Amino acid sequence: MSETDINPNADGSQIRVPVRVRYAECDPQGVAHHSAYPVWLELARTELLRANGMVYREQEEQGIYFVVARLNIRYRRPARYDDLLTIHVELLRCGASIVEHHYQIRREGELIAEAQTTLACTGADGRPRRVPEAMERCPQRAPT
Amino acid sequence: MSETDINPNADGSQIRVPVRVRYAECDPQGVAHHSAYPVWLELARTELLRANGMVYREQEEQGIYFVVARLNIRYRRPARYDDLLTIHVELLRCGASIVEHHYQIRREGELIAEAQTTLACTGADGRPRRVPEAMERCPQRAPT
Amino acid sequence: MSETDINPNADGSQIRVPVRVRYAECDPQGVAHHSAYPVWLELARTELLRANGMVYREQEEQGIYFVVARLNIRYRRPARYDDLLTIHVELLRCGASIVEHHYQIRREGELIAEAQTTLACTGADGRPRRVPEAMERCPQRAPT
Amino acid sequence: MSETDINPNADGSQIRVPVRVRYAECDPQGVAHHSAYPVWLELARTELLRANGMVYREQEEQGIYFVVARLNIRYRRPARYDDLLTIHVELLRCGASIVEHHYQIRREGELIAEAQTTLACTGADGRPRRVPEAMERCPQRAPT
Repeated sequence: MSETDINPNADGSQIRVPVRVRYAECDPQGVAHHSAYPVWLELARTELLRANGMVYREQEEQGIYFVVARLNIRYRRPARYDDLLTIHVELLRCGASIVEHHYQIRREGELIAEAQTTLACTGADGRPRRVPEAMERCPQRAPT
Repeated sequence: MSETDINPNADGSQIRVPVRVRYAECDPQGVAHHSAYPVWLELARTELLRANGMVYREQEEQGIYFVVARLNIRYRRPARYDDLLTIHVELLRCGASIVEHHYQIRREGELIAEAQTTLACTGADGRPRRVPEAMERCPQRAPT
Repeated sequence: MSETDINPNADGSQIRVPVRVRYAECDPQGVAHHSAYPVWLELARTELLRANGMVYREQEEQGIYFVVARLNIRYRRPARYDDLLTIHVELLRCGASIVEHHYQIRREGELIAEAQTTLACTGADGRPRRVPEAMERCPQRAPT
Repeated sequence: MSETDINPNADGSQIRVPVRVRYAECDPQGVAHHSAYPVWLELARTELLRANGMVYREQEEQGIYFVVARLNIRYRRPARYDDLLTIHVELLRCGASIVEHHYQIRREGELIAEAQTTLACTGADGRPRRVPEAMERCPQRAPT
């Protein structure tokens, strides 16, 4: 695949993750359906965690969950089937029990979409809990 | 299915659409994945159109498309597999070439999520075009 | 919605479940993507169980899982966006730890697809276990 | 990403495509939902075409479509969230207007699933048409 590798910046606060638009993700307009974008954002977050030494699957195995509380997406240009996109994800802010990420989706520099999410950290019981320490130590753009 | 019927209010400005949470829509936390919600919002919009005498499939056949430009979702409570949800959708505002909708997702009165979308009306060439007259005549909460 | 109600036959061995094709389920050819069909089959199975007094969610809560082991689909005609389909599902056979279903997907009588699945019954540990008694008592077309 | 590169064999008749299991593809059992597999098969087919010098998007732009007519999947072991799978795809046979592929899905050698598909080649009108010559020349395991 001509997908380039995942590409963290020097301090691990940002990462670029390649995604090839799948046929099943496209709609009758021939472009990626808007519900495919949150899936890409999520996999980019997972890779940002991995670049910082955390495996989300292992978090869940330890009873630590991240739940999406807010999702904002601004769609700017259509992404077409088979496009090779790059998801830029950045940890904006890590609070006591929430984390905020900012995203840009690009196709060779062209801005396709921007997004922001707020995740709540919960235990297996669904109640809020403190974000794991390792995540609090991750580089943030706008630490609180 | 115990799904109740689609239920427009008197003037057609709002509608309530039942959705049963599918197994494939749920994630390892046993709840509906956040990417399922935009799909439900979309089908509720389609039913709001239908209640106002417009069939979106026919719009596209005539070269009139609606493209999601903005999506904001506030997830308040998890929706579980097999839950019978109700999507409340309302046409907020219909501009020259955009439409805004507001949504509430409820489970027997309990608020699961709130959302807002902005759609742009385009022709087959992807360029903005005037919203069809029939839509401009639909009841709006906050006409411009 | 003009979706007709779920319609079991007299002895509960078959059921007909209405499904409206969603926009997000359609691909650039303007027809339902082939990966949407297994999702419809699954929700039809769930309704067949419900018509026979079993709620699959409750099965899982009791540690009884059904896992798809085989899936065969024969796609005969495209299903288009907004089509109102009917999923006919029938319990073919219930063995010690597997169940087989047969399906027809129709649009006003016209055959869209036929399918067959084999599910394995497992415990929470993923190991095969005996199918619940209530399911063994369900009417089958071809009891072993 | 530790996804290894797509890896065609010497004569281009087979290819191995890495796929990371996405969170949104997993179900309440914590494993990939069975409807995710056809999506992976499809993207592997696309990469097999690409390895043979054909870009499926360009085919469609020229009015040549491939439509899934049959899908058989045998699920052998669950694929879990975040697993790095390899889709092995092989062109079995290329007839006048159909193509057959065989697939194995593996996780580090372990067989997760096997599948077979039959695709029909159609024009923009949905009618069968001759498979493009370039595809007829692709290496096949069992040429007719």
